[in-house]
Amino acid sequence: MLSIELKNRRDKIRRLMLQKEIDALLIATNVNMIYANGSMVSGYLYIPLNAPSYLFVKRPNTIVGENVLSIRKPEQLPELIAQCGLPSPKRLALEGDDLTYRDYQRLAACFPNVEVLPCATTLVREARSIKTAFEVELFRRSGKLHADAYAQIPNVYRAGMTDRELSIEVERLMRLTGCLGIFRVFGQSMEIFMGSLLAGDNAATPSPYDFALGGEGMHPSIPGGANGTLLKEGETFMVDMGGNYYGYMSDMSRVYAIGSLCEEAYKAHQVCIDIQNEIADHVKPGVVCEELYQIALERVRQAGFADYFMGVDQKARFIGHGVGLEINESPVIASRIATKLEPGMVFALEPKIVLPNIGPLGIENTWVVTSDGVEKLTNAPEEIVLL
Amino acid sequence: MLSIELKNRRDKIRRLMLQKEIDALLIATNVNMIYANGSMVSGYLYIPLNAPSYLFVKRPNTIVGENVLSIRKPEQLPELIAQCGLPSPKRLALEGDDLTYRDYQRLAACFPNVEVLPCATTLVREARSIKTAFEVELFRRSGKLHADAYAQIPNVYRAGMTDRELSIEVERLMRLTGCLGIFRVFGQSMEIFMGSLLAGDNAATPSPYDFALGGEGMHPSIPGGANGTLLKEGETFMVDMGGNYYGYMSDMSRVYAIGSLCEEAYKAHQVCIDIQNEIADHVKPGVVCEELYQIALERVRQAGFADYFMGVDQKARFIGHGVGLEINESPVIASRIATKLEPGMVFALEPKIVLPNIGPLGIENTWVVTSDGVEKLTNAPEEIVLL
Repeated sequence: MLSIELKNRRDKIRRLMLQKEIDALLIATNVNMIYANGSMVSGYLYIPLNAPSYLFVKRPNTIVGENVLSIRKPEQLPELIAQCGLPSPKRLALEGDDLTYRDYQRLAACFPNVEVLPCATTLVREARSIKTAFEVELFRRSGKLHADAYAQIPNVYRAGMTDRELSIEVERLMRLTGCLGIFRVFGQSMEIFMGSLLAGDNAATPSPYDFALGGEGMHPSIPGGANGTLLKEGETFMVDMGGNYYGYMSDMSRVYAIGSLCEEAYKAHQVCIDIQNEIADHVKPGVVCEELYQIALERVRQAGFADYFMGVDQKARFIGHGVGLEINESPVIASRIATKLEPGMVFALEPKIVLPNIGPLGIENTWVVTSDGVEKLTNAPEEIVLL
Repeated sequence: MLSIELKNRRDKIRRLMLQKEIDALLIATNVNMIYANGSMVSGYLYIPLNAPSYLFVKRPNTIVGENVLSIRKPEQLPELIAQCGLPSPKRLALEGDDLTYRDYQRLAACFPNVEVLPCATTLVREARSIKTAFEVELFRRSGKLHADAYAQIPNVYRAGMTDRELSIEVERLMRLTGCLGIFRVFGQSMEIFMGSLLAGDNAATPSPYDFALGGEGMHPSIPGGANGTLLKEGETFMVDMGGNYYGYMSDMSRVYAIGSLCEEAYKAHQVCIDIQNEIADHVKPGVVCEELYQIALERVRQAGFADYFMGVDQKARFIGHGVGLEINESPVIASRIATKLEPGMVFALEPKIVLPNIGPLGIENTWVVTSDGVEKLTNAPEEIVLL
């Protein structure tokens, strides 16, 4: 990766550090390391406010460079920082929402005379929420491959399949188009394999996870997604896979049906597309996330589908979410979210309806906020695909 | 799941609480929840030392039961505990190695007059390290399905494939035999999709992760495993997938070759199998993990393969690891590990050699310590499979 790109990212973090009067920030967890270092390394990335960053590497032992030093354990950090000719920090930020309690305490104890603050997660996630042109281009390329995989779904469907069997073939299509497979999530609120394929009434099954729709899953240890439902005529299924082609989680859902559906289903589907399009028309820098959420609620109420919007018995309380190296980044498009949109924010918008005895309907695409509007990053037909 | 099984698990945790004079333990993270509750639920499982446990559920909203209450936020915990007729705890254990620093602090602040200790992770992981008969049976069934998937690998191999292409087909076989896909890891030291397929010299590529072997991977955001190497005559590849069929990570590696190999390769492979068998003969309750590691080092030195054992330029410093709901549990089979084996401990043993210009050789199986020895849980031919 271009070192100028990485410097830009770290300088974005530094500007946020300056606002909080923080003179050094230590990255010790995987996703933030990928962001600020450009590749996953086991070790520590030390970012001083007014000096170049240093990488202290545990593994792999093959990394060398001007500002790279080897480290075995965190207790060496103060000594290594001094060796680099850097002053001891006054206010040091650690990743309070990424590090475990004990790892945080161990790191903090390495700096006994330093004011240690747990705000590094918040700062780095804020920096990460505004994607660079480089990152947006990776999303664009990811969106194309993601759409390529979905375009082949009709070719792998065979009559008599269950949701799980078709999901396996879709996972393979994703992998064959280059998906790295791993589904990265911030925190404990979501766990999933590559994504979900939800068919019929299973799409309305409440789950412990914070996805837009739930699903029973195949086992109580991972209760979400496909549950073995037979794919049958008159019902729909929705494919919602995480498209991690270059580290970035593009997010995209499409609806499929075997044979034709009742009128109500087409109507509900179109309501979701209309909501998406109305919101997209409304998106520009400065717009508050909550406004977008209210547009969706208003439209779905007018259309008479409020009871089935974003789940039935248990509803998701958002219609969109930032995406990036993780599936759940800032901003969240939900009630009481006052975040103002900025150019470079990338988010998934997923108005979805689940109709009893029919299944899931609606749409999900990934979008980037531009200087005067929004660009769709996952371009593919949006109507229900008949198999 | 049988409620008696779950009660046994929680009573095992209680016995460890008693030793540490802890009168209540709170589970708030996913894997420990699956262990002690039998299914994943978003919320809190409160385990008092001398009273039945209570489940405080955020999601799904469908869970009901005698000792189940609904909760929105952790600040309600003291009030709900009182509602259950339970006294306020004196010494409360939280999961210090699972919870993030900020989540831990928030939970601890809910109990201002309580001595809060971060040892719940350690206690629950110790309980988890000794599997019940029920859990061992799940491993046995998992091992059979895992072996079934590997048995079909020769059917999906086609000449001219890359490691990545074949890996995708193996992943599909795993899924078709029932693998849930998700690969659960404790901590940040490992990230992988379903497992790895390492071919030729790529098996010796150092990675940031703490797996037995590394691999370059396809992208710097997930630098491990297949890197696009063409599978070719005279070289080997190793399949090492995580077999999560019932929540439990069975672990198993087998070696494949296209056409025949040089004598050295067969010799190295046999050394690993001999090490495995000698260690298996040695395993019984009371044996110290370090002893097993020393047996391996001694044998591989005698055989002249020490330079290529467990990697080349960067070597793994273990030959085995406990497995369970996560791939990295107790015990670790490594130097300076004084843990004594106990009946019910389940571990993967993976003596592996990487020969330059040939590739990976060796074996990995999952084993359970019995009352007088050890039982192999992943039974399949161990010789190099010629394609």
